[in-house]
Amino acid sequence: MKPLKIVVIGGGSSYTPELIEGLIDNHDVLPVSEVWLVDILEGREKLEIIEALAKRMVEKAGCPIKIVATLDRREAIENASYIITQIRVGQLTMRKSDEYLSIKHGVIGQETTGAGGFMKALRTIPVMLDICEDIEELAPDAWLLNFTNPAGIITEAILKHRHVKVVGLCNNPINFYKKFAKDYQVPIKDVSLQFVGINHLIWITDFSIKGISRLNDVLTGTSDSYQAKNIPNMGWDPIFLQSLDAIPCSYHKYYYQTDQILAKQLEEYKQGETRADQVQQVEQELFTIYADPSTTEKPEVLDRRGGAYYSEAAINLIKSIHLDVKHIHTVNVRNNGAIPCLPNDACVEVNCLVENHQITPLQTGDIPPQIRGLLQVVKAYEELTVEAAVTREIGTALQALTLHPLIPSAEKAHELLQDMFIANEAYFQPILT
Amino acid sequence: MKPLKIVVIGGGSSYTPELIEGLIDNHDVLPVSEVWLVDILEGREKLEIIEALAKRMVEKAGCPIKIVATLDRREAIENASYIITQIRVGQLTMRKSDEYLSIKHGVIGQETTGAGGFMKALRTIPVMLDICEDIEELAPDAWLLNFTNPAGIITEAILKHRHVKVVGLCNNPINFYKKFAKDYQVPIKDVSLQFVGINHLIWITDFSIKGISRLNDVLTGTSDSYQAKNIPNMGWDPIFLQSLDAIPCSYHKYYYQTDQILAKQLEEYKQGETRADQVQQVEQELFTIYADPSTTEKPEVLDRRGGAYYSEAAINLIKSIHLDVKHIHTVNVRNNGAIPCLPNDACVEVNCLVENHQITPLQTGDIPPQIRGLLQVVKAYEELTVEAAVTREIGTALQALTLHPLIPSAEKAHELLQDMFIANEAYFQPILT
Amino acid sequence: MKPLKIVVIGGGSSYTPELIEGLIDNHDVLPVSEVWLVDILEGREKLEIIEALAKRMVEKAGCPIKIVATLDRREAIENASYIITQIRVGQLTMRKSDEYLSIKHGVIGQETTGAGGFMKALRTIPVMLDICEDIEELAPDAWLLNFTNPAGIITEAILKHRHVKVVGLCNNPINFYKKFAKDYQVPIKDVSLQFVGINHLIWITDFSIKGISRLNDVLTGTSDSYQAKNIPNMGWDPIFLQSLDAIPCSYHKYYYQTDQILAKQLEEYKQGETRADQVQQVEQELFTIYADPSTTEKPEVLDRRGGAYYSEAAINLIKSIHLDVKHIHTVNVRNNGAIPCLPNDACVEVNCLVENHQITPLQTGDIPPQIRGLLQVVKAYEELTVEAAVTREIGTALQALTLHPLIPSAEKAHELLQDMFIANEAYFQPILT
Amino acid sequence: MKPLKIVVIGGGSSYTPELIEGLIDNHDVLPVSEVWLVDILEGREKLEIIEALAKRMVEKAGCPIKIVATLDRREAIENASYIITQIRVGQLTMRKSDEYLSIKHGVIGQETTGAGGFMKALRTIPVMLDICEDIEELAPDAWLLNFTNPAGIITEAILKHRHVKVVGLCNNPINFYKKFAKDYQVPIKDVSLQFVGINHLIWITDFSIKGISRLNDVLTGTSDSYQAKNIPNMGWDPIFLQSLDAIPCSYHKYYYQTDQILAKQLEEYKQGETRADQVQQVEQELFTIYADPSTTEKPEVLDRRGGAYYSEAAINLIKSIHLDVKHIHTVNVRNNGAIPCLPNDACVEVNCLVENHQITPLQTGDIPPQIRGLLQVVKAYEELTVEAAVTREIGTALQALTLHPLIPSAEKAHELLQDMFIANEAYFQPILT
Repeated sequence: MKPLKIVVIGGGSSYTPELIEGLIDNHDVLPVSEVWLVDILEGREKLEIIEALAKRMVEKAGCPIKIVATLDRREAIENASYIITQIRVGQLTMRKSDEYLSIKHGVIGQETTGAGGFMKALRTIPVMLDICEDIEELAPDAWLLNFTNPAGIITEAILKHRHVKVVGLCNNPINFYKKFAKDYQVPIKDVSLQFVGINHLIWITDFSIKGISRLNDVLTGTSDSYQAKNIPNMGWDPIFLQSLDAIPCSYHKYYYQTDQILAKQLEEYKQGETRADQVQQVEQELFTIYADPSTTEKPEVLDRRGGAYYSEAAINLIKSIHLDVKHIHTVNVRNNGAIPCLPNDACVEVNCLVENHQITPLQTGDIPPQIRGLLQVVKAYEELTVEAAVTREIGTALQALTLHPLIPSAEKAHELLQDMFIANEAYFQPILT
Repeated sequence: MKPLKIVVIGGGSSYTPELIEGLIDNHDVLPVSEVWLVDILEGREKLEIIEALAKRMVEKAGCPIKIVATLDRREAIENASYIITQIRVGQLTMRKSDEYLSIKHGVIGQETTGAGGFMKALRTIPVMLDICEDIEELAPDAWLLNFTNPAGIITEAILKHRHVKVVGLCNNPINFYKKFAKDYQVPIKDVSLQFVGINHLIWITDFSIKGISRLNDVLTGTSDSYQAKNIPNMGWDPIFLQSLDAIPCSYHKYYYQTDQILAKQLEEYKQGETRADQVQQVEQELFTIYADPSTTEKPEVLDRRGGAYYSEAAINLIKSIHLDVKHIHTVNVRNNGAIPCLPNDACVEVNCLVENHQITPLQTGDIPPQIRGLLQVVKAYEELTVEAAVTREIGTALQALTLHPLIPSAEKAHELLQDMFIANEAYFQPILT
Repeated sequence: MKPLKIVVIGGGSSYTPELIEGLIDNHDVLPVSEVWLVDILEGREKLEIIEALAKRMVEKAGCPIKIVATLDRREAIENASYIITQIRVGQLTMRKSDEYLSIKHGVIGQETTGAGGFMKALRTIPVMLDICEDIEELAPDAWLLNFTNPAGIITEAILKHRHVKVVGLCNNPINFYKKFAKDYQVPIKDVSLQFVGINHLIWITDFSIKGISRLNDVLTGTSDSYQAKNIPNMGWDPIFLQSLDAIPCSYHKYYYQTDQILAKQLEEYKQGETRADQVQQVEQELFTIYADPSTTEKPEVLDRRGGAYYSEAAINLIKSIHLDVKHIHTVNVRNNGAIPCLPNDACVEVNCLVENHQITPLQTGDIPPQIRGLLQVVKAYEELTVEAAVTREIGTALQALTLHPLIPSAEKAHELLQDMFIANEAYFQPILT
Repeated sequence: MKPLKIVVIGGGSSYTPELIEGLIDNHDVLPVSEVWLVDILEGREKLEIIEALAKRMVEKAGCPIKIVATLDRREAIENASYIITQIRVGQLTMRKSDEYLSIKHGVIGQETTGAGGFMKALRTIPVMLDICEDIEELAPDAWLLNFTNPAGIITEAILKHRHVKVVGLCNNPINFYKKFAKDYQVPIKDVSLQFVGINHLIWITDFSIKGISRLNDVLTGTSDSYQAKNIPNMGWDPIFLQSLDAIPCSYHKYYYQTDQILAKQLEEYKQGETRADQVQQVEQELFTIYADPSTTEKPEVLDRRGGAYYSEAAINLIKSIHLDVKHIHTVNVRNNGAIPCLPNDACVEVNCLVENHQITPLQTGDIPPQIRGLLQVVKAYEELTVEAAVTREIGTALQALTLHPLIPSAEKAHELLQDMFIANEAYFQPILT
């Protein structure tokens, strides 16, 4: 077996230490020889802090992984085995811009859902397609594990416009497994979850422990479900939850509780305390700790950051692919008929069998209308968003945003778009066809 | 050819004189021998006014059509050739209730679109299914032409739950033909329109005069499109209209201009001048004229009522079926694959060939995502609405309403539902499963 | 309206006089100004005979249509309005080769069905795609009416590999209409036929006269159905016909009576009297008559030739397109979902609405398994045949032929292929990938 | 965990000792407490021999499994955990009848493929549906593992007409795994096979060892594939195999080498040495050995019988379901979209994930036309066969048999049907509708 070269694009991210920890812990089965951390000039300082920390971590662990940090993306990609993308085009500043402009126009500002995620996608897709061009040329056999948000839309753009072996990952599914395993005091392998949906809009239509369905425990409120730390939790209307007949994810609140969340965000906005502001603060704390030469392990405070277990998801998947262990992973792949009510070339987040270096989705069967309707309209929005990012047409962008369930009208979409395009001029140049 | 018996259920409607006029005008090709007007006890007075007017109309025209008015629905249906349903369960009072309760909760109150149409469907479907049971028994070969709103949902309920030869009609398509024929000064047969959608949510994806596409005339604003008189007209954002690449119908404003329409309705509500109030006033005026023995023709004021040309649509269709003339009609039928992105058993409004006593939809081809997304979510709402009407389950009703794009949250849906169920206790008894 | 230029590629065909007759008869509504007859060098003699006859015909009729004969295809195509293709690559000699080689190997030799049609397709598709390249360049707005056999496969090849407005025609459907109209003594417009299938494999799943179904008249043998003159007619097993629940076409005999037809062909082969031989004889007779200067009309003997009413089908279609008369035609078009159990990009022969210069298929609904199974396997064979013609791969050709229901094994297919490739070396050069 | 009761219907089969051996070997992980062997009166003698042998086997192994033999099916089924059906309606005598009548009419006689399997299905489906009624009543939570041939058709009949948790099994897939694992000298878990198809008509579209594709080893003849012992092996045409681009199964020979197999069977028939005759002889030998009190283990000669590893397939599946171990099994289940070109309610044989007491098929993706065409026509034949068995209509039976690729005409099908119905009068009473 040839030595493994892992490349992390956006290597200066505060999440990287968790990944390094995971690679150290799994080194006996997954003998990684090199980890390349790639970032851009604006991220050099953070990259250097992470590089130094990563080196201290492997040294302390006595683990023979070579850590390389570089601003030269192509050098890093060359001959890579697995490439992880976790970039943030425009960094936290632009996330803040997305959220503020959204809420200024009276619509929900969220990093991946709604107008925020939309603008992030337009800004990010061109950069990701460029990265994929490099991969096609320099490491055509490498697997690309994409964490860059909005992960489903980004992955769909790559699936449609590049020839790279890409799979989109999210820490949502693994957190559901962890949560239920803990609550029912069983190992994760005893938990079965039937996921249906797309990234950040997944429903669990069945859930069992050791083959006994426990779905009703959650639907009737006997058990609670996994809640992402970064999304307000106001509970569900009991009749709504039971008639939904599926467990929603945290991001469903933006759709099912739009008015309440909006009211909350407007309040935070007035007080200058949006999610972007909080994240910026946590980031500063984290890098202060990371830069401390006495830090030689992943600090606990990282768990507050929102991406818990993301590296575990990544390393589990790499292990399955690399060692051909035939496990089920819930990841973002080409639909190909697995969810029959969505287009074949759409990106979906479903249970997949990893086998024979391929990732094959399991058939989800018929989707009940209460799930189907929302799923289809959001997916159509995503298709238009990918198209808008690639063609840069204002009209397509306007159609995408107008179609989004969180946007109340074409006029509102147009006003918002105008402001966002001004704010993003450095990243995205729209054209009028 | 056997003599034709036409039955109008809801015969006391103010629209009936237009239908009588149409039957008189077409008597040479469509030799109707009897028209039965059926209504319920609460509508007896109106029914008698209409009966008397209809008799004066046929007498004046010297047309040998026998007019019969009755409260006995079964007697009327027996051996009918064509049955037209144009009922309003709960009459205008309940329409007013629907609209007021919606706007009281801050959501758009409209007779067919949104919460108003939803509650109207729940109230109406059980009655319509009862009527269909009578038809199955007493006139199994009769065609049912349904005008009862929300016409698409009602027709879907019948298609799914009864065995009746039903087709849903709306005056929207014929008004587009009339409008464009007039604007381009050509006969209607020279106008071709490619419709895609469901009742009150249809897009025109191509439009031509004598085989030359004129779609861009409308998309660029050179020509304007048909506007229903009962829906506010605020024009379209030019970039939005062009990138939509299809002509929307008047009802699209509720979806594409939600915030503006809502603001307008809230204003009207404050001033006690909703659409229901206007209609009630027009109705009173109409019946005063109808009751006048000197009225022997359809009065002109009827055109202000909103249902222009509905009888022309009905009579054209009856002529096509009856005389097997192989025309294209835009009507509501079982999808059966004509719109591939909707379920086969959904009711859709598309161009159909009427031939051999059958109504066969034309294939619409691929639907672009900006149309597809909205179409799918509203159709899923409609499926759930039909299910809620038939099962009477509160949970299903809650899922339906929550899914509707004009409803901002499950909580709002639940509150609205509770009020509406109280107001409709005489018509609909929900159950908690 | 601009003057109409009609181009007939394969203009030297014995069928052309029927077309000329039709254009003369319809000149008042379809004011054709020029008819260009194109042929290749080998066909010059025939072309000149036809040219002279056509000129005599228009002169006698006093019809101002200019007849031009040419060997320069590009000159003819330039600015054409409608182009009709009726070519026979390799002429009757190669048809004879196809039939003889098939029957020599013990399988049915038929011009369009089975191994004969397969080899004809391989030989013809490259030529037809070349013609289409010229059309794309020189007459991009022209409609191409393809009669070249196997018409369905050829049309599918063009639909998949060129951008030409193509429609495939066959005289089978019009002959069914004519036959039933005559038998029931009604005008054709009173006959409705529900066709499902692909070229030379169409079923009639419903049939009515003035809106009354008459399907059972045929299924029970009270009425008989249209029989192509060039295919043996041995009648149908009554139970088979009734349980089929659809009227088969003449070509179905090759599939449903394979052993009997094969026995018959083997007998003919022994006696040197195959269909190709008969056709060659009829052709000689025809051209002798055509060449006679006293012939100034289409001679009656042409009806024995097998393509009866083909020109009527063509001219009716041109009239519908050109005058936008919104008629239903049964033609070969892209499936696009009309037959849901076949691929969207397959070519199917179904009822279509001609409107707005477009040809839109009507939805056929669910296909019963006895029809579906045969339809799907033959269509898959056709897809592979198109692919084999375009890629020239021996392997693909072998898969196509092996899959055909009339071929008993891969070995037999391979042997036959080897002989056919030798015989067709001048027309088709296979490659081994 | 409650004690496991396993029921074997057709327990007197010569295969049963292999199953008993498997249950003994797996008793540590699968603690079966009772095995009930059920048979009919005609099979009593064999049942008693098997019962005695099974008792000697568990005794020798010191394994606390209680063996019960009974002719009372309902008593056995009550509270069963897993039910295995391996019945042969009409026993070997009727198999012989099927084979002889087929070959007498000049078509391939095979137990599951073609006319033989067809008649077996008609005879067997009513009995299997009766068994399922008992299961619905007496053991509604039990899993039914069906081995009764034709296993795919039988399973489809149950899926469509009963509410039983059924899965169809075949030893074909496991034998492919065993064969390749042995050839490449790796454990089975390192072999990945992508199966597409229906029972006895499965293709392997990809095959890898430890994640490295080895498909071409087989396609180019470097490696050979698994060959069922009961089907003649004449090798594949190299170009055919490579262009098929998939590994066929042994039963494909009936379709791809029809003429050769038929010639072989006609020869055997003349000499009175059909497969049925051979099996009858092997059976006699086996029961002589089984009846010998000194036999206390499964005798080696059983391997010659054709059903090798069938019990391993069954026990592996029971283990996966029972212990929820999330393995992939290639079994017969409701399609549900896994093979998009087949109906959703068809039974297909594909890779499935067993998890959470459910069996979910993996998406197979697009099927190339050379596979699709044959798959679709045989599946349509199977649908009609199920319908014919349930309705008993002669017409439906005739359509089924005529559609089968191994039957040359409707006439031949009809003649064969008449003979078969006479021979099967005790088992199947056809009706003429």
